[in-house]
Amino acid sequence: MNTGELAELGQQLRVDSVRAAAAAGSGHPTSSMSAADLVAVLFARHLRYDFDRPDHPANDRFVLSKGHASPLLYATYKAAGVIGDEELLTFRENGSRLEGHPTPRKLPWVETATGSLGQGLPVGVGIALAGKRLDHTDYRVWVLCGDSEMAEGSVWEAAEQAAYENLDNLTAIVDVNRLGQRGPTRHGHDLDAYARRFQAFGWHTVEVDGHDVDAVDRAYGEALSTRGQPTAILARTLKGKGVASVQDREGLHGKPLPEAEDAIAELGGPRDLRITVHAPTAAGEAPARRITTPELPRWERGEDVATRNAFGEALAALGAARDDVVALDGEVGDSTRLEYFAKEHPERYIECYIAEQQMVAGAVGVAARGWLPFASTFAAFLTRAHDFVRMAAVSGSGLNLVGSHAGVAIGQDGPSQMGLEDLAMMRAVHGSTVLYPCDANQTARLVAAMAGLEGIRYLRTSRGESPVIYGPDEEFPVGGSKVLRSSGQDRLTLVAAGVTVPEALAAADTLADEGVAVRVVDLYSVKPVDVETLRTAAEETGCLMTVEDHHPEGGLGDAVAEAFGDGRPVPWLVRLAVRNMPGSAAPEEQLHAAGIDAASIAAAGRLLVGEAIVS
Amino acid sequence: MNTGELAELGQQLRVDSVRAAAAAGSGHPTSSMSAADLVAVLFARHLRYDFDRPDHPANDRFVLSKGHASPLLYATYKAAGVIGDEELLTFRENGSRLEGHPTPRKLPWVETATGSLGQGLPVGVGIALAGKRLDHTDYRVWVLCGDSEMAEGSVWEAAEQAAYENLDNLTAIVDVNRLGQRGPTRHGHDLDAYARRFQAFGWHTVEVDGHDVDAVDRAYGEALSTRGQPTAILARTLKGKGVASVQDREGLHGKPLPEAEDAIAELGGPRDLRITVHAPTAAGEAPARRITTPELPRWERGEDVATRNAFGEALAALGAARDDVVALDGEVGDSTRLEYFAKEHPERYIECYIAEQQMVAGAVGVAARGWLPFASTFAAFLTRAHDFVRMAAVSGSGLNLVGSHAGVAIGQDGPSQMGLEDLAMMRAVHGSTVLYPCDANQTARLVAAMAGLEGIRYLRTSRGESPVIYGPDEEFPVGGSKVLRSSGQDRLTLVAAGVTVPEALAAADTLADEGVAVRVVDLYSVKPVDVETLRTAAEETGCLMTVEDHHPEGGLGDAVAEAFGDGRPVPWLVRLAVRNMPGSAAPEEQLHAAGIDAASIAAAGRLLVGEAIVS
Repeated sequence: MNTGELAELGQQLRVDSVRAAAAAGSGHPTSSMSAADLVAVLFARHLRYDFDRPDHPANDRFVLSKGHASPLLYATYKAAGVIGDEELLTFRENGSRLEGHPTPRKLPWVETATGSLGQGLPVGVGIALAGKRLDHTDYRVWVLCGDSEMAEGSVWEAAEQAAYENLDNLTAIVDVNRLGQRGPTRHGHDLDAYARRFQAFGWHTVEVDGHDVDAVDRAYGEALSTRGQPTAILARTLKGKGVASVQDREGLHGKPLPEAEDAIAELGGPRDLRITVHAPTAAGEAPARRITTPELPRWERGEDVATRNAFGEALAALGAARDDVVALDGEVGDSTRLEYFAKEHPERYIECYIAEQQMVAGAVGVAARGWLPFASTFAAFLTRAHDFVRMAAVSGSGLNLVGSHAGVAIGQDGPSQMGLEDLAMMRAVHGSTVLYPCDANQTARLVAAMAGLEGIRYLRTSRGESPVIYGPDEEFPVGGSKVLRSSGQDRLTLVAAGVTVPEALAAADTLADEGVAVRVVDLYSVKPVDVETLRTAAEETGCLMTVEDHHPEGGLGDAVAEAFGDGRPVPWLVRLAVRNMPGSAAPEEQLHAAGIDAASIAAAGRLLVGEAIVS
Repeated sequence: MNTGELAELGQQLRVDSVRAAAAAGSGHPTSSMSAADLVAVLFARHLRYDFDRPDHPANDRFVLSKGHASPLLYATYKAAGVIGDEELLTFRENGSRLEGHPTPRKLPWVETATGSLGQGLPVGVGIALAGKRLDHTDYRVWVLCGDSEMAEGSVWEAAEQAAYENLDNLTAIVDVNRLGQRGPTRHGHDLDAYARRFQAFGWHTVEVDGHDVDAVDRAYGEALSTRGQPTAILARTLKGKGVASVQDREGLHGKPLPEAEDAIAELGGPRDLRITVHAPTAAGEAPARRITTPELPRWERGEDVATRNAFGEALAALGAARDDVVALDGEVGDSTRLEYFAKEHPERYIECYIAEQQMVAGAVGVAARGWLPFASTFAAFLTRAHDFVRMAAVSGSGLNLVGSHAGVAIGQDGPSQMGLEDLAMMRAVHGSTVLYPCDANQTARLVAAMAGLEGIRYLRTSRGESPVIYGPDEEFPVGGSKVLRSSGQDRLTLVAAGVTVPEALAAADTLADEGVAVRVVDLYSVKPVDVETLRTAAEETGCLMTVEDHHPEGGLGDAVAEAFGDGRPVPWLVRLAVRNMPGSAAPEEQLHAAGIDAASIAAAGRLLVGEAIVS
């Protein structure tokens, strides 16, 4: 396409954006109009993409970080000939693939779900990292950002990592249209303000008039020829460009144009230009990856091993058996034991430093390229990435997240380091799996199992050593549990997981000595939960008592309660959990203070059994 | 103190840091030793602080962002004479005030809990904002940061806001000791790398040898004399400074020194220097704030009003009645209706732009100065600040958080914008209050009630209009509920909140027409929950069915289940919740697809009542 045609294409994308939003009665046409020329030039001139083969390994990747500009994306798909005009006008309708914000669950050409701002660039960094460090191919990643989202810290986590990793295969295009949702952005049209920031973080920058298609074309060329560092193109644009009544005006974010017909006329009316997006010339064969059954580490009963150590060893073994395993660290690999993997597979280890949002976004990015990521930090600090985990679920992304140092059991470091909300966070994620092992062999088996699951999988590990109670050949199906103590005389069931399992066993032994038979269930699979075993225990013992190293809300107790969610009677359900705000103390003191150690469990059990007899 | 004495003081702080960690058998002495001279000079020469009056309004504020360097902080308190040597050696013991990471719940001189990195500077920005924009006093805020934590995006959200707000009362001191937990940081001792970044964000910077006490003193002087912008002091230091066996060496993070006695000898042995920290010279009287009863907005039954609108109006009214109310926005005030407050009280409105972590940290900061913050964005985007909310609870901070656009009821915008995990997140926060109103009058009352609570208070609001069902004089105690339909023949109780209340009422009417009497409870207080009403309903109707616009985990259903957590029988408990991954659709289509609209509730109710009869 020549200059005139590119400009016409930009107008067409505007017209179709206006039409889509008008048909929907909602949406973000003005945010689409500012970026229309940027996208027109990119798709017509520079993007190498085979729309018939979205999985082509040499495809460039385009990420719409400003996901609310979805009308522009869909208008571009129409121009590329992969959706029709009729579908375009289903925008935001029930059942349409064209959602308010794009998602790969619906459209094969979308790399990651966006709509929560500041996420597209971090995920784009993950994809570019995959290209550079894992795939070793030369696809490029183009991320279209809004200017408002530059306020998100996650953008600067991404900027830091991209420059540090010399991602010259990554281009951020910032649509500086001066206006956020509520009003002007901090920096307005001061392109230099953005350029200074990116430069300081080590990026090459280009400032350009985002409506001058030739200048934009040259800017992309400059990005392509820049070596050793990522490029940020700061494009001066006008929100609502091309329609005088909305152009560069406040108060029009996220609204269809007031007079759509007039606007379309002002833009020159509908057009039917077709973009020929060039497919990549590089090989279309994805490299074969070796995926075999891991030889998991084995421990003998009676050893004392921290589950975090077992995780590290198991992940290293999984990495040896599968070429697709990638580990992402938040600069705590010595604590989480991700370093065991790093030592054996340095080429597939990505240090994200203390930037948990980027760590999870990086995992989403490499997963989008077919890798199997394990991202790990302290359970407490995964809360930093909650929004990224949430959006990963919207993407339908397959991530393994591992949170170490769970609960008060960490001891002296105090509450800032204790994951006490992580089970609640992870359970509430759509389609998630939540696992919480109590011993080393169980941990290893669950790590291997995670690799075969879909969606967000979370493993919770512990800092301190715990006794190995299972043999190395024991199996632990996801959704299952283990009944560790059981008899026909059980008057109570203790439901524990992780560090509370040994405590529950000790309590059961104490109570047994006192003549009270108690069942113990190791509920290592917190989600999905083993409904059948819990119901049987409820029927046979009458009382369930959950014991968890987590705040009372959203964790083990709630998971067990949910097992009785179809209206089945729960005769008795009592929850022991961390109801205090812990301070510093030794692990055993912490468990006691929280009332979840063996002595507290036994005391509660006595009370409960006594009450049950009385009632 | 002269140069020699300052250097000696630095050594004393090192010795006492080593001693504290040795006594504890854990802790971070090497991270304390790098920053000892920085802290010595600050406290001896520049900090204006009255240790006898931590609430002195003119006190400077010191924030230890690298909270793991707590031994240094406590050694400094000892040198200032506010704790004794005996207490110093209780570091990390059960019951000691000297926790592994400092917290204001235990120590009156600590401004905010730290230990999750990248949070001290954002909170410091909040405190500095309070000084500049709210208190109008000239206290200074000094934040000691680690170099590792510069990787956290939240630091750059803070940097952006501090420069934009011209916070020349804020100084960040970055202890560039080159080593993180796992190994070297990205930038090592490249002070310029940090300086470039801060400068690009609009800060004045000073690079200095962090062990040259005169140079450090001059750097602080330069910060004090800098006008119109915050100052970042980049200090080159050595981790473990002063003890050859650990100095500048990897693998020694978070560990007591191997040979503490030798190290103490090498540092010149214990000393007993006293720092005279100078109290502020400015007035010690806190300005009186007018706190009266708000004249809340009133609506008549039958009106249709969005609860987000009611929140905005109520907050504006609260702001008129109380001088201490401050609103913090995430650049969505037009959507959350925080703009109603902004229009009436612009002097107490803080726009944080799209930086949710900074928004919550800013709220923690202004709360630390005695203000009553309300921070608001979409419920979905509050997940971005989960770690800050968690740490605010560790601080014991009093925050009001308001999440709008909850649930699938927002309609076409799709899942990226839908808060479907927020109740789980907020319920799991220690000591939190979680409120979810269904109509305008209820919202207004709950907003007023929030002002009188402690801890983290969360209000969930909705995008669409809903009918006003309560009169303007109705009262809604926190921890209460409203029984909206009730009879002696009730065979089922619907427990709803927010948008599901009108749906439950409609379903109850439908079922009543069919001859099935159904109780309806409006559970506007999700935490604490109205245990008594729920138990009575369970006893009298036999069946409870929760209906929530939230994922099934951690929300209303779990809150209701918890009401039966002392072992009391729950005869039947069924949960309707959002189990699908929504797409774009109209609000009523979304509610139907999720199975939480009136028709779905009625259908489930029929099934349940039928089943109950059969069983």
